[in-house]
Amino acid sequence: MTAIILDGRAIAKRIQQEVAADIARMKNKYGRVPGLAAVIVGADPASQMYVQMKRNRCAEVGMESFLHELPASATQGELEGLIAALNADPRVDGILVQLPIPDHIDEEAALKAIDLSKDVDGFHPINVGRLTMKGRDPLYLPATPYGCMYLLHEAEKLVEGFQIEGSRAVVLGRSNIVGMPMALLLIHANATVTVVHSRTKDIPSLVGEADIVIGAMGRPEMIKGEWFKEGAVAIDVATVKVDDPTAKKGYVWKGDFEYDKAAERVAAITPVPGGVGPMTIAMLLKNTLTSAQRSINV
Amino acid sequence: MTAIILDGRAIAKRIQQEVAADIARMKNKYGRVPGLAAVIVGADPASQMYVQMKRNRCAEVGMESFLHELPASATQGELEGLIAALNADPRVDGILVQLPIPDHIDEEAALKAIDLSKDVDGFHPINVGRLTMKGRDPLYLPATPYGCMYLLHEAEKLVEGFQIEGSRAVVLGRSNIVGMPMALLLIHANATVTVVHSRTKDIPSLVGEADIVIGAMGRPEMIKGEWFKEGAVAIDVATVKVDDPTAKKGYVWKGDFEYDKAAERVAAITPVPGGVGPMTIAMLLKNTLTSAQRSINV
Repeated sequence: MTAIILDGRAIAKRIQQEVAADIARMKNKYGRVPGLAAVIVGADPASQMYVQMKRNRCAEVGMESFLHELPASATQGELEGLIAALNADPRVDGILVQLPIPDHIDEEAALKAIDLSKDVDGFHPINVGRLTMKGRDPLYLPATPYGCMYLLHEAEKLVEGFQIEGSRAVVLGRSNIVGMPMALLLIHANATVTVVHSRTKDIPSLVGEADIVIGAMGRPEMIKGEWFKEGAVAIDVATVKVDDPTAKKGYVWKGDFEYDKAAERVAAITPVPGGVGPMTIAMLLKNTLTSAQRSINV
Repeated sequence: MTAIILDGRAIAKRIQQEVAADIARMKNKYGRVPGLAAVIVGADPASQMYVQMKRNRCAEVGMESFLHELPASATQGELEGLIAALNADPRVDGILVQLPIPDHIDEEAALKAIDLSKDVDGFHPINVGRLTMKGRDPLYLPATPYGCMYLLHEAEKLVEGFQIEGSRAVVLGRSNIVGMPMALLLIHANATVTVVHSRTKDIPSLVGEADIVIGAMGRPEMIKGEWFKEGAVAIDVATVKVDDPTAKKGYVWKGDFEYDKAAERVAAITPVPGGVGPMTIAMLLKNTLTSAQRSINV
């Protein structure tokens, strides 16, 4: 079997084109475009890079973006004051506080300060609570799990006989931003979900029973190709830089899956990079557009 | 193998004695006792019975209880007005809104109106969000899953070689008040958890792999005794009245497990009734005591 490659870059591009078209219509009809405000606390280079990538993509689709950088010494009050100002700013439809933030700041309190209607990252504790409970749809789904679900729905169209409902799913990892919300989304979608983590015994046999495998551990190639069930759908969220002197740049990006061997067994798989990564920003843009549409009752 | 019976009635009694002793000390030292306010909307007989049971148990441990009954026609504003008054009442340490409430009332909004510090049922969306996320401990655990975890910790003392951490757990059911929070608690306790529900295929083999089985479906004896792994720990939350003309009262209580046959295979099991049921109220009393202790900084 040769796996179908779930090309996140191409799918994300298509989503972005749809978002861009909606924004163009909004601009025409209502004279405004959606706006996304990003807040960075402290000059973490990775955070700056991620935020820059998000702002570039905003520009591509015609969305406004606003950058607010606070020093690492910023107080809780300063951060929440900034968030309050962004809550009140009608040009801002989405607010994202780039994590991590310095330890002296209460993360939950900061995220809770974001107006629920502008919580496009979906990390407000009330949105998380709604994600957990049946019949209480969150206003926004966290971007990475939302992107993975989107890819799984693509796989339903591409892979003969595959459907999320009724399938066995294994989520590798239980982080707040990927593993846990991913497990919840899959449960609500009627998959039978097992959450696997560092204390799990016999990971190979659990992976071997799964129709859907989500890699969200950040352990390069820990999940061996031969463990996968034939015909499974493999979504790899992990993107880890691994030194490789033979590579032109001196490093390569690796996911949790042993990609080449997995691709020989599974029905569909995401590449790393170019799989889930591009989807995350696309879903964030989609959430921000949704927020703007709600604010003008489209 | 003959299973150890996890005697919820006896364990709940022990917890209640501890709660009663703490309340007596509180009364002596601070001249006050904890208070629990129950709100019923509409005259649902089952709700009235549950609330009466809770009030009886309050009386047994020396806790004050307050009953507020609103008519089925009560408005959102009336319910939230009552909750606001209870939030402000210093005699009230815990507020429980007995579910279900009539459909015309927004349940989430009502639960959100409860002061977080008095949310002894643990159903405030922020407490649910905290239960979901790592490192964000909820102020109170929902009583039934909390009671199940307590029984599992008892089983760790009683069953040779059994420990929650590293075990395989199957949670049957994904309700907001039992299945989902139970799964989250077990994940945080480092079990490897699979959530099973009506769309799950091959339930017998999943049950057969589990060291911990939690029954929370309300499907009498659906889980057959022979499905259990030898030596598992079986916790049955379901309590369903089943007609039985041979029984004195004309009915018997059944759980999700085929009890007699399961008890021949597993290492420990809860009876129905007298297992999880009594634990639920004990944990609610414990939560209310905790609230009172926090309010006087004990």
